[in-house]
Amino acid sequence: MIIRTEAKKAVKEPQITLVGAGPGDADLITLKGVKALQKADVVLYDALVNEELLELAPVHAVKVYVGKRSGDHSYSQEAVNKLMIDYAINYGHVVRLKGGDPFVFGRGYEELDFAASYSIPATVIPGISSSIAVPGLQQIPVTHRGLSESFWVVTGTTANGKISSDLYQAAKTNATVVVLMGINKLAEIVEIYKAEGKHRLPVALIQSGSTADEKVAVGIVDTIAEVAQDHKIKAPALIVLGDVVSLHPKFQPIREFYDILAQEQ
Amino acid sequence: MIIRTEAKKAVKEPQITLVGAGPGDADLITLKGVKALQKADVVLYDALVNEELLELAPVHAVKVYVGKRSGDHSYSQEAVNKLMIDYAINYGHVVRLKGGDPFVFGRGYEELDFAASYSIPATVIPGISSSIAVPGLQQIPVTHRGLSESFWVVTGTTANGKISSDLYQAAKTNATVVVLMGINKLAEIVEIYKAEGKHRLPVALIQSGSTADEKVAVGIVDTIAEVAQDHKIKAPALIVLGDVVSLHPKFQPIREFYDILAQEQ
Repeated sequence: MIIRTEAKKAVKEPQITLVGAGPGDADLITLKGVKALQKADVVLYDALVNEELLELAPVHAVKVYVGKRSGDHSYSQEAVNKLMIDYAINYGHVVRLKGGDPFVFGRGYEELDFAASYSIPATVIPGISSSIAVPGLQQIPVTHRGLSESFWVVTGTTANGKISSDLYQAAKTNATVVVLMGINKLAEIVEIYKAEGKHRLPVALIQSGSTADEKVAVGIVDTIAEVAQDHKIKAPALIVLGDVVSLHPKFQPIREFYDILAQEQ
Repeated sequence: MIIRTEAKKAVKEPQITLVGAGPGDADLITLKGVKALQKADVVLYDALVNEELLELAPVHAVKVYVGKRSGDHSYSQEAVNKLMIDYAINYGHVVRLKGGDPFVFGRGYEELDFAASYSIPATVIPGISSSIAVPGLQQIPVTHRGLSESFWVVTGTTANGKISSDLYQAAKTNATVVVLMGINKLAEIVEIYKAEGKHRLPVALIQSGSTADEKVAVGIVDTIAEVAQDHKIKAPALIVLGDVVSLHPKFQPIREFYDILAQEQ
């Protein structure tokens, strides 16, 4: 019996599928992602992935947490890459389940590239990116006629831990700007926008978007750091800067306040 | 019997769900989108939506094509808004099925706003946006360490039919730039990049991404207009401009060509 099982294992072709799990709500995975999970022999999953999704994989499938989150004990990217190859060779189909979309600051290409260096076929199934969907679920459209003809998604944490220098350029433009992994640098981001004279630009902070723990706070560049403290907004949270934030119902009283100020002047 | 049916109809609460259908592949809709379709009384769907998705709606559900595509006979945004309200009041749950994500140049907020003006509850289910997923399916990551710390999505067709003026700013930056609905203005876009001296920036054109008709062509700013003609690339197609395009396998021979040129000089 044991021999037969092992023989069966040996013929299974190694294969890797990078799957975007979406922003948190388990129902925001794609049908294609579900089908990949149903055929998984191994699932390697990240910190921000909803663990309910693991139930979609077969009972026999090995589920391995390789999550990264600042401060916790977790695997380096190199370790994840190696693990992925080891499991593919020994078990067959590895589903690499990643938060959001694999290519939005997800280091997905590095994993594809590593798989290619071992000649293991690898494919990608896109996921719902929080950059668009998390504002959207709050009914903040990243684009809207008359307010925004483009949106720019920037990382708040580059390889060296700093805000991307692209944000200095972004603050000069009319684009809706979405900053991922930047909530701990909110004060610095505010300064960048103030330097451009954008004191009253609307800003939204959304924590744990699409999940039961979702929290939203809105303000303007001049007030948002205080608002963040008042609402105790913490990572994971994204920052949306742009006139489209004024469409959020919570922005209405802020607008009225400034209208009154304008009348008094 | 007729009276009873009508009475039943009358108590059904009007309700609208905006659902992102994704880039084309029917399996790239979310589970949440599937569940909404299964509870639809009416589906209003756009031109670029995969019609296979209509089969997910109940047999009794009314399916109405309201697609917009340059040149065809279709409804204006105002007509779609009104239709959506009429159907919601008369039938109950309207699923407004839109290509990609409802808020990425989808005019989704206008529909939400119109529903709100009739006090009809409306919710949003995000979709996979072609802006991220279509390059991703070609294994072109919109972000990649060492190549791109941000991506900027711009429309090639604003309300007045022109390229967004944001593209002039985008061409100056290090962001990966994705232009949607811009393929017919490729020559103009090329000129904007040439004016910034970005003659050798890698460019990809992807037509009908994620579908059986998918076509991809790669080049650099100086050559891409000719490449587009050679490959007969037509709408719907998106344009990706940025160093991440150099990761595409088709870019390899182009890189080698320039390496040889560099050695000769």
